[in-house]
Amino acid sequence: MKILIIGGNGTIGKKLTEYFKQKHEVLVAGRTTGDVTVDISNSESVQKMFDKVGTVDAIICAAGEAKWKPFDELTEEDYYIGFKSKLMGQVNLVRIGQHYLSKGGSITLTTGILADDPVPMTASAAMVNGAIHSFVKAVILELEGNIRVNVVSAGMVADAAEKYDAYFPGHNPIPMQKVVNGYRKSVEGRQTGEIIRIYN
Amino acid sequence: MKILIIGGNGTIGKKLTEYFKQKHEVLVAGRTTGDVTVDISNSESVQKMFDKVGTVDAIICAAGEAKWKPFDELTEEDYYIGFKSKLMGQVNLVRIGQHYLSKGGSITLTTGILADDPVPMTASAAMVNGAIHSFVKAVILELEGNIRVNVVSAGMVADAAEKYDAYFPGHNPIPMQKVVNGYRKSVEGRQTGEIIRIYN
Ligand SMILES: NC(=O)c1ccc[n+]([C@@H]2O[C@H](COP(=O)([O-])OP(=O)(O)OC[C@H]3O[C@@H](n4cnc5c(N)ncnc54)[C@H](OP(=O)(O)O)[C@@H]3O)[C@@H](O)[C@H]2O)c1
Ligand SMILES: NC(=O)c1ccc[n+]([C@@H]2O[C@H](COP(=O)([O-])OP(=O)(O)OC[C@H]3O[C@@H](n4cnc5c(N)ncnc54)[C@H](OP(=O)(O)O)[C@@H]3O)[C@@H](O)[C@H]2O)c1
Repeated sequence: MKILIIGGNGTIGKKLTEYFKQKHEVLVAGRTTGDVTVDISNSESVQKMFDKVGTVDAIICAAGEAKWKPFDELTEEDYYIGFKSKLMGQVNLVRIGQHYLSKGGSITLTTGILADDPVPMTASAAMVNGAIHSFVKAVILELEGNIRVNVVSAGMVADAAEKYDAYFPGHNPIPMQKVVNGYRKSVEGRQTGEIIRIYN
Repeated sequence: MKILIIGGNGTIGKKLTEYFKQKHEVLVAGRTTGDVTVDISNSESVQKMFDKVGTVDAIICAAGEAKWKPFDELTEEDYYIGFKSKLMGQVNLVRIGQHYLSKGGSITLTTGILADDPVPMTASAAMVNGAIHSFVKAVILELEGNIRVNVVSAGMVADAAEKYDAYFPGHNPIPMQKVVNGYRKSVEGRQTGEIIRIYN
């Protein structure tokens, strides 16, 4: 398979790149690094990336931002950071990316446990994740060419535990191998419309 | 209780107004009708509404729009209709409305079954509903003064069945009494952070 991994040099992304490279041809996209650069919050940039990359068998997105702030400090503009980047960025990867996928190809998005089990300061981040879960269930009703779309929703991943532990009291860090397996299930499996929750 | 019902003259809203008026003082807000007018997609308008209305014991929102269109026809701008109206409109009712609630007061938002069980043409509408579900779970972690926030997610309601039946094949219309009971649970009960699903 030819696999495009957006955010393929990030904390999660680099483990995905490492794994999929063993068996597949991997192209990494990032904002500043990678085989191709892209800003997913800009749909023209997404279009340009696909023009360069051409047809692939799988698209994985492990990129996207939303603002973390105490609820009373979140401004309306702050919410729109998440809408533009993690939410519409990933929607645009489906809108545009579907036309660059081979038959039966998959798109795997990334959210996180905040959708179901949030912590303080994540009113905006949780919302964006929940939005994508419902989006994935809805969009697969309308895609053609056997294209599959799933989303991996992991808990705090082991490689980021040092950075995030204080924000996630009592959460168990998810071993990176389990995280990678979530994406494997989507890319190498056959399911579609699945929210692959990896919370333990 | 003094209850503010935004969208209180709509299909769902008028049944809520009818019920709560029996026991409580009800103020209806609407875009064009009601005791006070408001456009929830505009935060200044929301602020003005609360300046007029003052402190209340319960806020119910049964208003908000998102664009229904085939996925391939939804433009980026179309998604922003839902973000501005049904999503940020309801977020702004919490952001601003929390300061106009008596102790233990409640805010009850409205989503719908599309969050969990979408139909074609609802990639945007489903997403907005799912976003609010996660938002409600996150925001209650940070509110003060015992303020409660819940969301009622009903299936296709009986009073709208004629209009929507063709879009919801096999969905059972939800009797209005069950819909009203969902809002009663939030307003007259004590729970918070609950997604009150009324799908059968
Ligand atoms: N870390 C966790 O515990 C965890 C758990 C569950 C879910 N998640 C989610 O998983 C995703 C990745 O998380 P992570 O911890 O791996 O993040 P990360 O280490 O910050 O890596 C993110 C990667 O995405 C790229 N990127 C960021 N914004 C981009 C944009 N607008 N366009 C294109 N590429 C962009 C970055 O590229 P550059 O370096 O070139 O900027 C970077 O390589 C996020 O959505 C995060 O919320 C994380
Ligand atoms: N109908 C269903 O089967 C169903 C099922 C589940 C969930 N829902 C959700 O429940 C909510 C209400 O649905 P409905 O069928 O009762 O809708 P509706 O009959 O169209 O009524 C909506 C009401 O909200 C007001 N409104 C609309 N946009 C507004 C805005 N920007 N600012 C302030 N008020 C606004 C309207 O006031 P004006 O008339 O003055 O414009 C109207 O009174 C919607 O979010 C809908 O998605 C509906």
